[in-house]
Amino acid sequence: MILTVTLNPALDVSYAVDSLVAGGSHRVRSVTERAGGKGVNVASVLHAMGVPAVALVLAGGATGQAVVDDLESRVMACRVVPCGGETRRTVNVVSAASGDATIFNEAGPVVSADEVSAVVGLVRSMVADGAGVVAVCGSLPPGVGSQAYASVVGAAREAGAVTLLDADGEGLRGGCEAGAHVALPNRMELRAATGCTDDGAGVRMLQSWGARDVVVSAGAEGMRAVLADGRSLTAHPGKRLRGNPTGAGDAATAAVAAGLAGGLGWSELLRDAVAWSGAAVLRPVAGDVDPADVARLRDAVTVAEP
Amino acid sequence: MILTVTLNPALDVSYAVDSLVAGGSHRVRSVTERAGGKGVNVASVLHAMGVPAVALVLAGGATGQAVVDDLESRVMACRVVPCGGETRRTVNVVSAASGDATIFNEAGPVVSADEVSAVVGLVRSMVADGAGVVAVCGSLPPGVGSQAYASVVGAAREAGAVTLLDADGEGLRGGCEAGAHVALPNRMELRAATGCTDDGAGVRMLQSWGARDVVVSAGAEGMRAVLADGRSLTAHPGKRLRGNPTGAGDAATAAVAAGLAGGLGWSELLRDAVAWSGAAVLRPVAGDVDPADVARLRDAVTVAEP
Repeated sequence: MILTVTLNPALDVSYAVDSLVAGGSHRVRSVTERAGGKGVNVASVLHAMGVPAVALVLAGGATGQAVVDDLESRVMACRVVPCGGETRRTVNVVSAASGDATIFNEAGPVVSADEVSAVVGLVRSMVADGAGVVAVCGSLPPGVGSQAYASVVGAAREAGAVTLLDADGEGLRGGCEAGAHVALPNRMELRAATGCTDDGAGVRMLQSWGARDVVVSAGAEGMRAVLADGRSLTAHPGKRLRGNPTGAGDAATAAVAAGLAGGLGWSELLRDAVAWSGAAVLRPVAGDVDPADVARLRDAVTVAEP
Repeated sequence: MILTVTLNPALDVSYAVDSLVAGGSHRVRSVTERAGGKGVNVASVLHAMGVPAVALVLAGGATGQAVVDDLESRVMACRVVPCGGETRRTVNVVSAASGDATIFNEAGPVVSADEVSAVVGLVRSMVADGAGVVAVCGSLPPGVGSQAYASVVGAAREAGAVTLLDADGEGLRGGCEAGAHVALPNRMELRAATGCTDDGAGVRMLQSWGARDVVVSAGAEGMRAVLADGRSLTAHPGKRLRGNPTGAGDAATAAVAAGLAGGLGWSELLRDAVAWSGAAVLRPVAGDVDPADVARLRDAVTVAEP
């Protein structure tokens, strides 16, 4: 079973408007709400693909309850560590005129060290109960430093799990330093966290911090895996897809988690990551894929090991 | 005691962003939440001015609870009729770069006839218990027609209250047809509801529908009252004020309600309406005035009865 950990989940609110005008007043034509945040989306993609997964969320307040209610309504397994603050929202305004999305991301509640400790304790016990792969995902909430991800990754590792890290900034560094087995930044996150404009140098820096394997996604150009044993693989999708790129990275992380849980080799694992990611682009919301799209796209992926 | 009735209250959420870019992704620097909707703002202004008022809201779900929690935290008297749907939010995005506000208004929950009947029943019993002035305010929620305001205004009238109507569209017409004692549209609402480009013709149409007195606000140009006895008065503010016009109309309605409850004549009543309205412009949020601003602005208002 795969466990995803989200310290800063969100209620993703989507507003449909006729046309967005800065400084204007808009009638919202429809409102949809869905549990979100990277780890929630990873678990949601695994659920769509029929892979057993549990979403652990640190959540609080009425918005936290709305996140949990949505997960339960989708029959997704979840575990909740309560926090004193109010879980954040993201508001995504979609203009019917242009098709563009304008996004407003709240920062999230200030989280205490005790709340992080409660998450660490639950992760440790769930690994003992059979969670063989633990994916630590998303932004760090306000109030906690990089040691929050370090402690979650470290606890999961010590308890015997394979650990994935899909984070940026301080969280990416902290999780690498705790020895994450696989770090999965996208190219922009890699550059921002390391200051390296060259991807190869950025990957080496993550590995010097402590990460074992590194998978870098470059959007429509595909993905690259640089392994601790010196191997390097690249995977390219068959053709450019049009759609919603939000959540494509989460689907790639889900594929890598599923592949590691299922004992796949890196060539198949990277092929799946590109296929799941592409299938996510074809869906209107983050955290969803159609297994038929995955199967079709998978055949078009080319994997090379130079 | 003054009773305000809001069938479609809102949780007003304000986001501070650095600069709003259509199609962009924004970090929200701060989030504030406040109970809103016209009737709530009217009660809130009365509360700020020390005038006894009760806000009756039809509210539901977690957002409805947040509205009630905010009213209670401000020590405002309120009565809640529960509704099955989820109370709406408005999201107000303020750009630090331009100072502009970009507003997204959710429509609100679909309301049933039974829920409106519960409001009517509570209004009737509160008038019997001493609510001498009833202000029916704001937009009609989805699912109810103009008869919703007609039934609330009609019940309050029959029970012996003086009724104020601060509504637009169908709600304005329905409340006038039920014989509202004072209708308070702004100029744009008057034109939209009647189709008349001439204010005088629009006012006569409201009175032909059944309204007794009509007060039309024209923003910085002041206000005009056209009374059933044939009198007509105008009031002008001393000078143009810079600030936040949202909620200025609600403050004017609060002033008229307070004046009617206190037995003021129309000349003083209209002077107060312009002063309270101006004081609201000077405050950053809707539903607030500083009594010192009201006193100062009041002296500068000129009232004419041609």
